[in-house]
Amino acid sequence: MAKDFNDARTALLSAFEQTRHATEALSAPLSAEDQCVQTMPDVSPTKWHRAHTTWFWETFLLGPNQPDYRPFNDRFCYLFNSYYEQVGERHPRPERGFLTRPSCDEIGAYRRHVDAAVADFLASASDAALSHTTGIIELGIAHEQQHQELLVTDIKHVLSRHPFAPAAYAAPAVPPRGIAPAAFVDFEGGLNEIGHAGSGFAFDNEGPRHRIWLDPFGLADHPVTNREYAEFICEGGYETATLWLSDGWARIQQDGRRAPLYWREADGEWFEFTLHGAVPLDPDAPVCHLDFYEANAFAEWTGYRLPTEAEWEHAAVRAGLEGRFLQPGVSAQPAGVGGEGLRQMFGGVWEWTRSDYAPYPGFRAPEGVVGEYNGKFMCGQYVLRGGSCATPEGHVRSSYRNFFPPHAQWQFSGLRLARDV
Amino acid sequence: MAKDFNDARTALLSAFEQTRHATEALSAPLSAEDQCVQTMPDVSPTKWHRAHTTWFWETFLLGPNQPDYRPFNDRFCYLFNSYYEQVGERHPRPERGFLTRPSCDEIGAYRRHVDAAVADFLASASDAALSHTTGIIELGIAHEQQHQELLVTDIKHVLSRHPFAPAAYAAPAVPPRGIAPAAFVDFEGGLNEIGHAGSGFAFDNEGPRHRIWLDPFGLADHPVTNREYAEFICEGGYETATLWLSDGWARIQQDGRRAPLYWREADGEWFEFTLHGAVPLDPDAPVCHLDFYEANAFAEWTGYRLPTEAEWEHAAVRAGLEGRFLQPGVSAQPAGVGGEGLRQMFGGVWEWTRSDYAPYPGFRAPEGVVGEYNGKFMCGQYVLRGGSCATPEGHVRSSYRNFFPPHAQWQFSGLRLARDV
Amino acid sequence: MAKDFNDARTALLSAFEQTRHATEALSAPLSAEDQCVQTMPDVSPTKWHRAHTTWFWETFLLGPNQPDYRPFNDRFCYLFNSYYEQVGERHPRPERGFLTRPSCDEIGAYRRHVDAAVADFLASASDAALSHTTGIIELGIAHEQQHQELLVTDIKHVLSRHPFAPAAYAAPAVPPRGIAPAAFVDFEGGLNEIGHAGSGFAFDNEGPRHRIWLDPFGLADHPVTNREYAEFICEGGYETATLWLSDGWARIQQDGRRAPLYWREADGEWFEFTLHGAVPLDPDAPVCHLDFYEANAFAEWTGYRLPTEAEWEHAAVRAGLEGRFLQPGVSAQPAGVGGEGLRQMFGGVWEWTRSDYAPYPGFRAPEGVVGEYNGKFMCGQYVLRGGSCATPEGHVRSSYRNFFPPHAQWQFSGLRLARDV
Amino acid sequence: MAKDFNDARTALLSAFEQTRHATEALSAPLSAEDQCVQTMPDVSPTKWHRAHTTWFWETFLLGPNQPDYRPFNDRFCYLFNSYYEQVGERHPRPERGFLTRPSCDEIGAYRRHVDAAVADFLASASDAALSHTTGIIELGIAHEQQHQELLVTDIKHVLSRHPFAPAAYAAPAVPPRGIAPAAFVDFEGGLNEIGHAGSGFAFDNEGPRHRIWLDPFGLADHPVTNREYAEFICEGGYETATLWLSDGWARIQQDGRRAPLYWREADGEWFEFTLHGAVPLDPDAPVCHLDFYEANAFAEWTGYRLPTEAEWEHAAVRAGLEGRFLQPGVSAQPAGVGGEGLRQMFGGVWEWTRSDYAPYPGFRAPEGVVGEYNGKFMCGQYVLRGGSCATPEGHVRSSYRNFFPPHAQWQFSGLRLARDV
Repeated sequence: MAKDFNDARTALLSAFEQTRHATEALSAPLSAEDQCVQTMPDVSPTKWHRAHTTWFWETFLLGPNQPDYRPFNDRFCYLFNSYYEQVGERHPRPERGFLTRPSCDEIGAYRRHVDAAVADFLASASDAALSHTTGIIELGIAHEQQHQELLVTDIKHVLSRHPFAPAAYAAPAVPPRGIAPAAFVDFEGGLNEIGHAGSGFAFDNEGPRHRIWLDPFGLADHPVTNREYAEFICEGGYETATLWLSDGWARIQQDGRRAPLYWREADGEWFEFTLHGAVPLDPDAPVCHLDFYEANAFAEWTGYRLPTEAEWEHAAVRAGLEGRFLQPGVSAQPAGVGGEGLRQMFGGVWEWTRSDYAPYPGFRAPEGVVGEYNGKFMCGQYVLRGGSCATPEGHVRSSYRNFFPPHAQWQFSGLRLARDV
Repeated sequence: MAKDFNDARTALLSAFEQTRHATEALSAPLSAEDQCVQTMPDVSPTKWHRAHTTWFWETFLLGPNQPDYRPFNDRFCYLFNSYYEQVGERHPRPERGFLTRPSCDEIGAYRRHVDAAVADFLASASDAALSHTTGIIELGIAHEQQHQELLVTDIKHVLSRHPFAPAAYAAPAVPPRGIAPAAFVDFEGGLNEIGHAGSGFAFDNEGPRHRIWLDPFGLADHPVTNREYAEFICEGGYETATLWLSDGWARIQQDGRRAPLYWREADGEWFEFTLHGAVPLDPDAPVCHLDFYEANAFAEWTGYRLPTEAEWEHAAVRAGLEGRFLQPGVSAQPAGVGGEGLRQMFGGVWEWTRSDYAPYPGFRAPEGVVGEYNGKFMCGQYVLRGGSCATPEGHVRSSYRNFFPPHAQWQFSGLRLARDV
Repeated sequence: MAKDFNDARTALLSAFEQTRHATEALSAPLSAEDQCVQTMPDVSPTKWHRAHTTWFWETFLLGPNQPDYRPFNDRFCYLFNSYYEQVGERHPRPERGFLTRPSCDEIGAYRRHVDAAVADFLASASDAALSHTTGIIELGIAHEQQHQELLVTDIKHVLSRHPFAPAAYAAPAVPPRGIAPAAFVDFEGGLNEIGHAGSGFAFDNEGPRHRIWLDPFGLADHPVTNREYAEFICEGGYETATLWLSDGWARIQQDGRRAPLYWREADGEWFEFTLHGAVPLDPDAPVCHLDFYEANAFAEWTGYRLPTEAEWEHAAVRAGLEGRFLQPGVSAQPAGVGGEGLRQMFGGVWEWTRSDYAPYPGFRAPEGVVGEYNGKFMCGQYVLRGGSCATPEGHVRSSYRNFFPPHAQWQFSGLRLARDV
Repeated sequence: MAKDFNDARTALLSAFEQTRHATEALSAPLSAEDQCVQTMPDVSPTKWHRAHTTWFWETFLLGPNQPDYRPFNDRFCYLFNSYYEQVGERHPRPERGFLTRPSCDEIGAYRRHVDAAVADFLASASDAALSHTTGIIELGIAHEQQHQELLVTDIKHVLSRHPFAPAAYAAPAVPPRGIAPAAFVDFEGGLNEIGHAGSGFAFDNEGPRHRIWLDPFGLADHPVTNREYAEFICEGGYETATLWLSDGWARIQQDGRRAPLYWREADGEWFEFTLHGAVPLDPDAPVCHLDFYEANAFAEWTGYRLPTEAEWEHAAVRAGLEGRFLQPGVSAQPAGVGGEGLRQMFGGVWEWTRSDYAPYPGFRAPEGVVGEYNGKFMCGQYVLRGGSCATPEGHVRSSYRNFFPPHAQWQFSGLRLARDV
């Protein structure tokens, strides 16, 4: 075995174990019942996330590459396949909450079984096998990191539907801070390139790298805060049809919606349901859990606009912010936005852009099952950039493209204003 | 304290404790997750049944009658009130599955707290207080027995929606038996009385006792069996429009239904999902989990008909079957129908009648909250008689009226044929 | 040809022609567009009623009995069959409003074609053929009379959904009148018979005549008036849960309903949409367009109750009111209830009873297609008695059983109180 | 009055009258009933289109600019406002089919009243007034042309829901033709501009003109034909999950869809419902009534892709096809695609592009009511280019952007393949 490969082995194993451990750490404070319930079709139970990420390793790494690997339970493939048509029949998504069996404990055993098998594989694989599988291992880590965020997002929704708004995690102490009024950082645009470049891991949807033309633009130095959004509400934002896209207006009329998903008013004050329970609104924290329509209506109200995803990526790269993640680990709430310059680009809230989620020029989904990972969702969704407090550190990049339908409210999603220059 | 009252105390306490213990015995084999999930709006989670029956004792017995009683948790009233408008706001029924908290363990503690308080009340109440509360205690016992059956019915639905059809309870050994072809036992009818009479406990809807006229009729000596129902299917029962009530025909067309709720066909043979898991259909057991439309279509196919509830009650009394319960305790499956004479009237399957659930002449709902117990459901439902394998022994009477909407399939419901003589 | 038969021929022809003419008279004031539109699945377009009643004659009289009869258009059977499974495939009921073709004019021609063929048949049939078909001719007349009422009921709904509440018919002058406070007429009950007796035409569901036991009861001398119902509203009837059946309470909560279907409030006064347009509420007219839940809640509020259908029929017969129809022809609105004794039993509003629509003892649906006429609807509906202002004179009898589901509001339906004596 | 203005007057009047006449010519063959019915919420009745376009002139031209103009009927504004929030309350879109009144005849009178008033305005307005209103007049003409196409599209859906597939218009004779296999015309791309330029009329959404970068690409010389699409079906296109976007796959599974909207199979042959009734499929005509998912799946199957809207517009301009409309007037069916070079870019079928409908850089909705015309729909829809057989000649341009949600099937929509070079 060459030294390089040994280093690579060690690095992969360490990344693998860290990722797996992080998933378990997020689940640990939740009871068996918390982990089992599904409160809407979009939500998956905690234990389903724990099992599905495990199934991913079993199906795409161990099955094809570890000759004598025996699946933990042959029937789990039916239960924990998410959407891979080519892998076979699977349990319907809106019925994941019916899976009282296997229990949390069995899923813990399943995870340990697969963890041991992967560790074993990494220790014993030939250099060729290792080289051949590095891509899928990196994908497996990125995939599990995505599910860590979804796990946090989903359990927040589950607990929010409980009439007593229970807390999942203890709240950290929050240091006092002040925030300067919004300012714009300008960029001159021109003919540029965006998309993933270089040799590190990236999802298929981040490429190919390609040329784009950008007119001059500015980006706000911080995401919109709760204080700013509360002003929008106070000045009748939710009652002014002309600020809204037509579908968004119809939707908030139908819902009778008057504030973001987890805001509640009591005695004339705003509270926010969080994974620490219900707390008074922090005026300096980024506004969170907006859908695309709310983000766009707010921008309309200010006279500015949402950025495109190309503008966002270009700004992040130009400002040299790649890798400047706001906070270590996963947090339950975004931190306040104090600071200088273009800030909180990574790790505060996912920022809605005005760009629909479409294939980049020249994009082709990879052959085989993994080709289902991203391509088939490229319709009717909008791109979000930057990562949130619930995103595992190190998971996102400047070229990273998250995407959700415009009515999705349950993500940690906010916005940053842009302007023409 | 007079001796009578001491006997009454002992009897009430013993009945109370037996009932409470039976509920826990039914729940014991189920995991925390099994007890938490709700698979359709009609179903309540196991732990909700355990808590709701406890809340009933707290609200209607302890609260008004035990001066220093402190509720276990003030917020449980909101969670575990079922439908009593006069008791206040309550958690929406279709969202009972969102209640991951309180946990099973906390509900166990809740039950023990209330059990102790009731025992204490029964020991210390004055004779006058005891006399005043006997009615509500008897109602509380009957109420909890009803929920024991619902608990069994509901967990059967929950487990049936799991893709692997897990078993809840171990299956008993089934003795071999033969069954004679159906025969009718005839009654001459005339001017009779039905409805509850005498001093024992009965629900308000079982009275007032009143006169009715009955034309001569016959009742089949056993409920329709799986073998008989399979023949109906085999001869095209589900494809013959003229056998069905119009609403029923529309419903089975829409569902694409071709067999009772829990039947599954595999390799040309019928299996039945039970609380022992999936088992081959027992041809001699009563057919079960029919809705009213299926029961009526089957009767139409035979050329006979469903009985009225008056016919059923009259026959049970005339045949001297009051109290002849098929089997001790609660079973997961109805036993085979072998035997002689009018049999399995009590404790096999609930038997659909042709009578809609309406107030008896002179019926008035009692004043106060308990008046909501039965009266307000007297519309759009049909009466079932006799009790099922899931009904606690001693719970039913000849005058007992169960009721469900005509499309309810998830109860242990079958039928017995009747004929004009 | 014997003289009797000639008289019978003349009488049948005359009844036939009068009935057919009455249908056309009701349609004449409506435009082609008014006659084409369907505003909810329960409603049928006017021109569909005109064509369906014509199809009935073609299918059940002319086709089987007039050897050389040629259908007007072979494809009409698909369009205008209502629900007869045995006659073959048919156009879905909720899509009747899509039938822009055939036009009103073509349907007029269709009616004239069939009218001529029936007249020809009645003139030329042998005595034997006439005798054989008298039953179906009487059924055809009764059937078309039923559809006259439905036509009026349905066009009222159609025009009520137009934002400007247009009038269909000119309003008659209303004579002034006063109304005495409600009084009860008592009956002693006992063992009695109900159901159709004698040789005249009746629907199959009105028999067999059979014995029933009646406890002593009283019936209000007039149907509940708008004034009385407005008082119920004013005193919070729609806000008091304990007055309502559980399903009814859920329904009015969901609708936000606070008054009968066609009532509208403007500047603190009640108006009613009628086929004469919107008019101020007539306080002395019977309240109309209640569903069963509203009727029952009103009765609950008064401390009285709804009658059973047996009580209603027994009272009508005992009081010698058979054939005492309130008003000639079809009217768009029920008249005021002034007068003496048990009044407006026939021809004011359909009166909800507490009886579900079930087969009488010994009832068997006739063999053949006509057997689908009534029997298959005997589930989940409640009986109404008496006929309304929209019912053609001579159509109803004491034994006549109308039926609708408990949530049906668009019929001319009200109530009369009953009491135990 | 200056001569220029007189010419302008004459030209505007002539364009106005031609447009108004064309609307009436399309409606003339339809009966009052055909014009009244609404078969799904997306569809508007013919007479509603006729009235709404008239209301547009009344509201945006005559009302603000003709001082003594009296609306034909004050209540029409409520009925015929489509979606302008700032103009006030309006009749709900899904209930347009309830408007049996006003009749077709009254709407004819309404149109003549407004036609006369507009002609009068054009004759008598001052030069300043004329200059001030030219923009709104051009918009009114373009708006009415859009509705001519919608009228044709909608009546096609109405008649297609009739069980007998009646014809609206007589079919033209179709000349025989042959079609060469598809070829691509290539373009070198680079830094280019798109968007409306110059002084002619264009909708606000066509600008601002702006720079874009295009990689080299090719565009198929003809839209995909029925023959080509039938091959896709035949080779299992509708059964192959990997060809479909995830939402599209879910949708065709749910519908059980196996062919385009108006295709029907009979005896192994394909027929197509058209406004000439049902006719055998023309293999050389462009495939039509695809939704975006079908267009994309077809492209995926061929190994090529959909063009972007920038590619499409660039190609049309470079190939010098601006204004080369396929056929005069409005036709009910697209013509066959025979010919040479890049053909049928205008006037065959609307061609789906891969571009979501988003604001161009620098786009701002105009102030005032007309600002609601386009901007608020910029979400969740995809751009179609080129115009169809149902588009009035002269209505479309190279920069013209039509848009519909990805599931819209009832438009005259097909596709043209693109490829990377």
